Amino acid sequence: MTDVIVVGAGVAGLVAARDLVARGREVVVLEARDRVGGRTLNADLPGSDGQIVEAGGQWVGPTQDRVAKLITELGLEIFSTYDIGDKIGHLAGRFTRYGGRIPRLNPLALVDLDRTMKRVDRAARRVPLEEPWLAPNAHALDNQTFDEWLRHQAPTSVSRTFMRLLTESVWCAGPEEMSALWAQFYIHSGGGLESLINVTGGAQQDRIVGGSQRIAIQMAAELGDRIRLRSPVREIVQDGAAVRVRTTAGESRARRVIVALPPPLTARISFDPALPADRDQLTQRMPMGWTIKVNVVYDEPFWRAEGLSGQANSDSRPLGAVFDNSPPTSGAGVLVGFFEAKHAAAAAKLDPEARREVVLNELAFYFGPRARDAVTYLEQDWAAEEYSRGCYGAFATPAALTRFGCALRRPVGAIHWAGTETATRWAGYIDGAVESGERAAAEADALLGR
Amino acid sequence: MTDVIVVGAGVAGLVAARDLVARGREVVVLEARDRVGGRTLNADLPGSDGQIVEAGGQWVGPTQDRVAKLITELGLEIFSTYDIGDKIGHLAGRFTRYGGRIPRLNPLALVDLDRTMKRVDRAARRVPLEEPWLAPNAHALDNQTFDEWLRHQAPTSVSRTFMRLLTESVWCAGPEEMSALWAQFYIHSGGGLESLINVTGGAQQDRIVGGSQRIAIQMAAELGDRIRLRSPVREIVQDGAAVRVRTTAGESRARRVIVALPPPLTARISFDPALPADRDQLTQRMPMGWTIKVNVVYDEPFWRAEGLSGQANSDSRPLGAVFDNSPPTSGAGVLVGFFEAKHAAAAAKLDPEARREVVLNELAFYFGPRARDAVTYLEQDWAAEEYSRGCYGAFATPAALTRFGCALRRPVGAIHWAGTETATRWAGYIDGAVESGERAAAEADALLGR
Repeated sequence: MTDVIVVGAGVAGLVAARDLVARGREVVVLEARDRVGGRTLNADLPGSDGQIVEAGGQWVGPTQDRVAKLITELGLEIFSTYDIGDKIGHLAGRFTRYGGRIPRLNPLALVDLDRTMKRVDRAARRVPLEEPWLAPNAHALDNQTFDEWLRHQAPTSVSRTFMRLLTESVWCAGPEEMSALWAQFYIHSGGGLESLINVTGGAQQDRIVGGSQRIAIQMAAELGDRIRLRSPVREIVQDGAAVRVRTTAGESRARRVIVALPPPLTARISFDPALPADRDQLTQRMPMGWTIKVNVVYDEPFWRAEGLSGQANSDSRPLGAVFDNSPPTSGAGVLVGFFEAKHAAAAAKLDPEARREVVLNELAFYFGPRARDAVTYLEQDWAAEEYSRGCYGAFATPAALTRFGCALRRPVGAIHWAGTETATRWAGYIDGAVESGERAAAEADALLGR
Repeated sequence: MTDVIVVGAGVAGLVAARDLVARGREVVVLEARDRVGGRTLNADLPGSDGQIVEAGGQWVGPTQDRVAKLITELGLEIFSTYDIGDKIGHLAGRFTRYGGRIPRLNPLALVDLDRTMKRVDRAARRVPLEEPWLAPNAHALDNQTFDEWLRHQAPTSVSRTFMRLLTESVWCAGPEEMSALWAQFYIHSGGGLESLINVTGGAQQDRIVGGSQRIAIQMAAELGDRIRLRSPVREIVQDGAAVRVRTTAGESRARRVIVALPPPLTARISFDPALPADRDQLTQRMPMGWTIKVNVVYDEPFWRAEGLSGQANSDSRPLGAVFDNSPPTSGAGVLVGFFEAKHAAAAAKLDPEARREVVLNELAFYFGPRARDAVTYLEQDWAAEEYSRGCYGAFATPAALTRFGCALRRPVGAIHWAGTETATRWAGYIDGAVESGERAAAEADALLGR
């Protein structure tokens, strides 16, 4: 019998556990996988003398104060994402190399795009982060897809195309899949479009020395044998003073439980009594995006010598977003690319060898034939991962937020909800996971009494 | 070790089991509840000498040939839904009593509504039932909500209002929640709008003597101890020649498995190996509608004497659809009403006594003060049911069908998929459940060999 059982040893769950321990509580963390970190995952870089690349969520940036503080507390260091040189853009069938923030466009398109982005940001700022369903015009916004809403805001095809590219990059889902209200909540939550999409000055600005999974690994080291790996939770029973949590291995008991999983996965636990209808209906309406993330390793970051940043993006190519993902030391060069949304679904149908070929083709298209000389190819299909079932995170489909959003964080008996999707600031990011863990720990602690 | 394990003793699962037994196969049916029937459920009518009313799916109609044949085989009888007299309509704030198919409208609105319905039907007929994603313009249709599509098709607010009312009645979900492609598939699948919404000549034409659950109860009687109740399936393991199916009670083994559950519930079983990413992503994008179904019992069907059919519908009232649900014999009168979609979510927030009061208010609004003199009030919240989690069925959110639809029926190793959502004709209805069970049984049988 412990004070709190935390389900899930991703960043959210580990932060919750760490906070509760700091408050003097007894905690057990049950993790389905044989590792901690959830959607953050380090992959060894073969032959690199201990260097890694990130196979999952990896970046942190300005205004992400909670994760920044945590990184400092854990004794970790950050370094800048490589962001020097030109970018490659491929929009509306045109290949361009450009130095600025966005591809060169004709002046009219540029004005339109600028206006569209300002309009989106202005609308997003009107959505309250705690209760998005209280936004002015919330129902009208929630009853349309982000795509439909954008079509009314973005008069030219260039700005529509750019917003689609942006959406697929930010969410690994298409604007046609998600509620406009939810998209605006998320944009507000992350400080606006520029903040979401920029490298320097935005959410892709910094990386963690040793890889982002180190955040979880360091917390796990502190928590020690409070963490039980290979313990997928199958059932949570509330039938008296204690909550009983059953894994495939056995049963644990606690006074309160924090479930720190993506919303669609929470419903896969069997609850007794069953979850309230509105929480269950919400989980049915928050699917995960889909990305297949590939890291391609080269002898050296050859693009840098050519004045290229290693960044590329396209509105139509299979590999729609590419960044320089080289380790901070060692001479190796790494390009990281993302098959996003519909491109992930299409790429998943290929066998691994064919998919590798597509990736090398894509990189050669962006950066020239040297991109074919890969030393190592690493890929991670997050939708195939039983205990993530998609990436980067869950989004809300039309009408879900206004009807069921209030059930997202609302405790159910002795059960509290964490996970980056339950955050108000930087929802969907590592920073949001930290916020959610802190909030759930505070909730549980307050109710445990002294 | 048996030939086939069927998961779920709803109509689809029982049909599959019955067909396999007829083909000489050994079958075990594992059912989570302590009853058979799934989303069909009889409720006793107190003091009525054994009469029942249906708390779940209840109607059958013309062109539903599979369920008609099954009813005959099982020795059951049907009777006509009471459909004599005027209807009550409440549209755009206007209360009307009308005799025809739809409320009296001004001639222009009538022409517009007629054109809109014809347009919807014409579009629906272009969607192939086996592979909806091959429809002309499939991607454009799937990338918008049914609401968005309707806004382009229905020029006046009257026809838009009517289509919203129709959508909420047919799916217990709003047109803003579902893909336009999926909605058109479903309309085609059920033979067109008139076929879906009509009582006489449509999907609400007939009822089953003794209640619709008798279909399942009779099949269960034939199957005998092949059915194991109170056996919720938690895990399905494919690791060799046999498939192992684990319930809370123990493990069973079979050569093949048929999972006959609504799509979102299939993902709540733990599969080893994990389900393919596309099937899992599909289940994340097929939420269930929500209805709270109420049956209100009176000494007599007082509305009939007043020349009323007991049918009412509204585009804005909480109880948006009402029908006469009186038993075929006995003098009692029963009105059945539905809180649909957002109205279900709102009504679920009330305590039972307050909800009963809302229902009686609604019925008095439609049928006069005598509607307050209820003898019995019965309600069934299908979203609160752990092993249904919504009703009538699952729908597809935007972009789901074109990206992941091909995973809906595709077997995964030795696992086949049934359930009305997997049907091509009358998907979402009892008839579709029968089709799906027959199809899954044939698939499994063919692969078992002789």
